[in-house]
Amino acid sequence: MLTAEIIAIGSELLTPERADTNSLWLTEKLNQLGIEVKLKTIVGDDDARLEGAIRDALKRSRVVIATGGLGPTEDDITRKAAARALGRRLILDDRVLEAIRERFNRLGREMPEINARQAMVIEGAEVLPNPHGTAPGLYVEHEGRSVILLPGPPREMQPMFETYVRPKLEARAGNTRVVRRILRVVGLGESAVDERIAPVYTRYKNPTTTILFNRAEVEIHLTARAATEREAELLLDGLAGQLEERLGDAIFAFRGETMEEVVGLRLAVGGYTLAVAESCTGGLIAQRLTDVPGASAYFIEGVVAYSNEAKIRTLGVPRELIERCGAVSAPVAEAMAEGVRRRAGTDFGLAVTGIAGPSGGTEDKPVGLVFVALADDAHTEHRRLMLTGDRQLIRWRASQAALDLLRRRLI
Amino acid sequence: MLTAEIIAIGSELLTPERADTNSLWLTEKLNQLGIEVKLKTIVGDDDARLEGAIRDALKRSRVVIATGGLGPTEDDITRKAAARALGRRLILDDRVLEAIRERFNRLGREMPEINARQAMVIEGAEVLPNPHGTAPGLYVEHEGRSVILLPGPPREMQPMFETYVRPKLEARAGNTRVVRRILRVVGLGESAVDERIAPVYTRYKNPTTTILFNRAEVEIHLTARAATEREAELLLDGLAGQLEERLGDAIFAFRGETMEEVVGLRLAVGGYTLAVAESCTGGLIAQRLTDVPGASAYFIEGVVAYSNEAKIRTLGVPRELIERCGAVSAPVAEAMAEGVRRRAGTDFGLAVTGIAGPSGGTEDKPVGLVFVALADDAHTEHRRLMLTGDRQLIRWRASQAALDLLRRRLI
Repeated sequence: MLTAEIIAIGSELLTPERADTNSLWLTEKLNQLGIEVKLKTIVGDDDARLEGAIRDALKRSRVVIATGGLGPTEDDITRKAAARALGRRLILDDRVLEAIRERFNRLGREMPEINARQAMVIEGAEVLPNPHGTAPGLYVEHEGRSVILLPGPPREMQPMFETYVRPKLEARAGNTRVVRRILRVVGLGESAVDERIAPVYTRYKNPTTTILFNRAEVEIHLTARAATEREAELLLDGLAGQLEERLGDAIFAFRGETMEEVVGLRLAVGGYTLAVAESCTGGLIAQRLTDVPGASAYFIEGVVAYSNEAKIRTLGVPRELIERCGAVSAPVAEAMAEGVRRRAGTDFGLAVTGIAGPSGGTEDKPVGLVFVALADDAHTEHRRLMLTGDRQLIRWRASQAALDLLRRRLI
Repeated sequence: MLTAEIIAIGSELLTPERADTNSLWLTEKLNQLGIEVKLKTIVGDDDARLEGAIRDALKRSRVVIATGGLGPTEDDITRKAAARALGRRLILDDRVLEAIRERFNRLGREMPEINARQAMVIEGAEVLPNPHGTAPGLYVEHEGRSVILLPGPPREMQPMFETYVRPKLEARAGNTRVVRRILRVVGLGESAVDERIAPVYTRYKNPTTTILFNRAEVEIHLTARAATEREAELLLDGLAGQLEERLGDAIFAFRGETMEEVVGLRLAVGGYTLAVAESCTGGLIAQRLTDVPGASAYFIEGVVAYSNEAKIRTLGVPRELIERCGAVSAPVAEAMAEGVRRRAGTDFGLAVTGIAGPSGGTEDKPVGLVFVALADDAHTEHRRLMLTGDRQLIRWRASQAALDLLRRRLI
């Protein structure tokens, strides 16, 4: 089995604020190829330490992937340190220089002199083009080792890996394939999920099962190993089917899809339209729905009725209703759903009102109290929720519950 | 200056799902003591690699902190690996054994034989009690190095560090304090920022400066060292003032605040109110603004006018204007800003319309074309932007540009 190490480079990754997340993405991709990650190193913009880290990694592992430190500024030192660790020269690559210059020209700008540094490549390295940025990647075969330098920004690193690195590693890795599948669960806690499915998954050594609590969602990660992807998929199908028997429609995604993708797909397939009225979530539901490309086919309008006046004026919630029941109440949530549906002329109206905190709670209506409501032409329903967490988490959970209400209607 | 390395131990930390977060907490604590973290290593439950990692760390750093791998199961190997790396024996500590046995007794259980392993301590080490679990920590002074083994679970590791490790390191660290400050920049790229400020910051060894490209923002991280926090703050004030001279109001935050916090504070201080009309950002601007606690003081209403009909119906954009200029145009952006301001009766109306992609672009109006507009009682202005990136990034950059338009008006 081929083993790999990942070196994440950047002084910011040695601060209290920033964790290295590139390595998580890379690990997933490497595992899929049957390559195991045995060690990760995080170094700052520190020439000597980075050179040492690359040397040490080369002693231990056949594949060494470094991310970051390829930018044009003074502290981007990966190229130099890697060249020294490999005992090779850095040389100016004219084609790379030309490509960087052209990129700037296309954006209507002169190339700043410091960007020329990004055209320095390690002797004998293959240059990996970067259509999403100026820093090219480098791939070096060295004494039976693969050394791969990738840029740090994920939107540059990820396509570069997929396009140029994956095929090379695939050829090296041989024929174990590891396939992972993510099932997402709504409305059940981590231990409740485990209690229901442990009798099933503990019987399997392949696929393996991990239950993860990710933000407000429980995820079930299944990992299968087989000689081919097809065989691994069949193993996954078998176990996933059994888990579904245990969890039913609490599983909303079988392939790692987001809730907004699942809801969006169902709306699109059914030819339905939707309008959303939000108070405490402040636009989060609309934002999540419209994050999905093609959302304009079903998402017509959203109203963030943060003030009572907005609820009355734009959603037609009766003032008397707010005065009598309070803005955070089931009748107001339902009136918001009906009001936005009426305004936008859509099949569905979805609404949420609640108290996200940290202030604004009372004994009667504490922080975390949220009402979600859904209206169609036939009837309107609501759910009352008591959510825990900080402001952001309560908002996210409220948006999830609202979208789930719609998902269940669309089943 | 004292430097430290952190070694995080556990095979789960080499999976795609789990990042090491203990080291972020430890880094914050170490930095406060003036101890800089120079390298982090993440190893699995792998004897030889862990021993090697500890050896390597001892060569480079005066303080080596390892977390995890102190449990009783077979794969908890930190004690053994550390003993070998230090060339010391492991010996059974009767008092530790007694303490573990007592802990089980208190819980009304017999100590499983396997837990006796946790009473093995490195010769000459100080035992760090663990009131929150069975695994004690170990502290070894070795040839001028401090080697510290802590348990992995944060609720065991954190109090152990605070109670037993911090006082020792404080004594070693002497009186250096490290203070970090984050400046955030809008509207300039990484290289443009570097060109303007490199002549200033390269003259300073203290504070040090790192330029970071984080999503769509450029951040400038300044780190100052001094005998007291007060002195460090003064050093930061000095450099930050000079950077401000070079970058002007492209710096929108001097203390790491988000754009929505900065804009929110200015609105609150001025007693102004705001309404937002969004097309391509789909609620993102409203969501960002309302992420800030207390936003209800200034944020009145948001409209996500995703369809043309919504722009006409809810924002009062003339149908004829959309037909003549297109929904993505400067006149429509301005009409949206004016329309939402009129509807909500606010001081400001902020609007955005554009093409976030991946589809929907034309030759005339490509993906990335965005108009942001701002209306107050006196006049309306707009900016035309050509943004790069994928759908999410274009949406985020559009929201940032819209908020920045408002920020500059509020200066």
